Amino acid sequence: MRLEDLGEFPLIARLTAGLESRADVALGVGDDAAALDLGVGHLLLATCDAQVEGIHFLPSIATPEEIGHKALAVNLSDIAAMGGEPLWALVSLLAPPALDVATLDGVYAGMRALARRFNVALVGGNVSSTPGPLTLDITLLGRVTRERMLTRAGAHPGDRLLVTGRLGAAVTALLALTATPAQTSLPAEALAEARGAMVTPQPRVREGMALAATGVVSAMLDISDGLAGDLGHLCERSNVGAIVELATLPVDASTRALARALGRDASRIALTSGDEYELLFTVRPDGVAEAVEAVRAVGGMATVIGEMTEPGQGLRVREPDGALLPLDPRGWDHLRDGSPG
Amino acid sequence: MRLEDLGEFPLIARLTAGLESRADVALGVGDDAAALDLGVGHLLLATCDAQVEGIHFLPSIATPEEIGHKALAVNLSDIAAMGGEPLWALVSLLAPPALDVATLDGVYAGMRALARRFNVALVGGNVSSTPGPLTLDITLLGRVTRERMLTRAGAHPGDRLLVTGRLGAAVTALLALTATPAQTSLPAEALAEARGAMVTPQPRVREGMALAATGVVSAMLDISDGLAGDLGHLCERSNVGAIVELATLPVDASTRALARALGRDASRIALTSGDEYELLFTVRPDGVAEAVEAVRAVGGMATVIGEMTEPGQGLRVREPDGALLPLDPRGWDHLRDGSPG
Repeated sequence: MRLEDLGEFPLIARLTAGLESRADVALGVGDDAAALDLGVGHLLLATCDAQVEGIHFLPSIATPEEIGHKALAVNLSDIAAMGGEPLWALVSLLAPPALDVATLDGVYAGMRALARRFNVALVGGNVSSTPGPLTLDITLLGRVTRERMLTRAGAHPGDRLLVTGRLGAAVTALLALTATPAQTSLPAEALAEARGAMVTPQPRVREGMALAATGVVSAMLDISDGLAGDLGHLCERSNVGAIVELATLPVDASTRALARALGRDASRIALTSGDEYELLFTVRPDGVAEAVEAVRAVGGMATVIGEMTEPGQGLRVREPDGALLPLDPRGWDHLRDGSPG
Repeated sequence: MRLEDLGEFPLIARLTAGLESRADVALGVGDDAAALDLGVGHLLLATCDAQVEGIHFLPSIATPEEIGHKALAVNLSDIAAMGGEPLWALVSLLAPPALDVATLDGVYAGMRALARRFNVALVGGNVSSTPGPLTLDITLLGRVTRERMLTRAGAHPGDRLLVTGRLGAAVTALLALTATPAQTSLPAEALAEARGAMVTPQPRVREGMALAATGVVSAMLDISDGLAGDLGHLCERSNVGAIVELATLPVDASTRALARALGRDASRIALTSGDEYELLFTVRPDGVAEAVEAVRAVGGMATVIGEMTEPGQGLRVREPDGALLPLDPRGWDHLRDGSPG
């Protein structure tokens, strides 16, 4: 069987089945980051994520600086999703020997600028030649106290479902920049903003730490695989169901404009958009105001978009007319869905 | 300028020049691993290294299990080179969608078998598709006490130079398996042993920890870039020179057999062989017996192969007839030297 026939998540499950552990592994494979017990109150968080030319980025769309930014941003987002503080990064670079050095200068400039913003030190890495595409594989280490760490497990029926920021811009830019009819339908300013969301996503590190500090958040992850897919991951791990109120989704203005032009439903684009780096989290009912205020206090925004239910009811969306429909939890599969973002 | 014109080490220097740090970074870019201060007596060690099909391994030579073994082994070797205890690994997998799942089953089986041997837990990772070759990029975390950590700096003139194990088998196997005249000149048993050294290198983790515990070792690194090249790195970082006694090199029997058949000098093959994972270290003159015994006590072997000198004298080899010749410190350059090992 080929990898693309099996798919990303079944492959991970297969490769990591019955994995040996150690007593100091607080959280192994299966969340946004691993959590390792240092025996000192803090847990060490560790995550890695690769960006491959032609899969995760296109040099025709993103500048070297933007490619470097995003390679670190996707990892910062994973640490943010645990409520953690990012600290140290290792950069593994796989580059074709004929690549221009100036391209890498730009990639590192973009990466270093973002690292500075979050006080992250680049402490190591590796350079290797490859006959394949330029690939940046970053491992990011961070820390969080055991009491504050937020995982995908922990949501309960009745908890409210919230998301940071606005949804849909990344896939809007992808559609607009790779399909001419879509492109011509977007105002230049909306396109530029959506493009920014796609190539320089802003990891919600401050929001994640602020939410972890409230004590009212029960589960959290980032929605790099899209809202529907990652909500599915959260529900599976927490053993709950969910209802998403379609009318409440904070859909980006660019997505609304594109949806109008294409005659599509903006909320549905936002629901399944991959490659976004907002935080999706659940809050106990009496803590919603506190959670929203905590995100606002660090300059972000958070919106209530639904509610967790008993597991037997699965994932559903409530249409604006009140109808409840099943939600396909299938998110982005990096082995089967090949489009760059 | 293209990467291959600049070369691996100048590229790393260029990309990491003036890198921002943090107060808790005890050791950043430039050694076998980064060392991060957890504020608890222990330092966290972090290293990453990638194995790329066609560059670091050939499926025609190595089985999937052997490929998985080596991908972890090269990282274990880096933690060993700091005198550290390996703990946790993250595996980033870049795989073509058409790859057979059974290949990855084998790769993970090899990796997990080696992880078990050293009590290392695989705690996370990432799977991504790539239009390029199969690539395994592993980040390994470990720990060491600050007093015991061994770096490339710290060697003094007069210190003795030692190396673990035997040298030359990896390059011997590479020559024998890729060049027919060489292949036919090696007895089958010698070839099988050399092949084993190339595809399943044994990281010297126990030796590294035992050496760190003695307190008599002044500097250490692993010789993944070859003895000559890595000795150059150690001398540069410690600001010393070195004399290698050619007659004392513990050259592998397979290398001697190959050298005889090809009419070449076995010691010179061993000196420049890349892709070996022995430890090269310096010991103060009164500590040699203790260091050798420490390695022997954990089942290994260590050999005195030279002495450190004042820096002005550079790197030299003493021929069996007593003549002192300059030693080219150029080691393996992963951007310029493309052969797999």
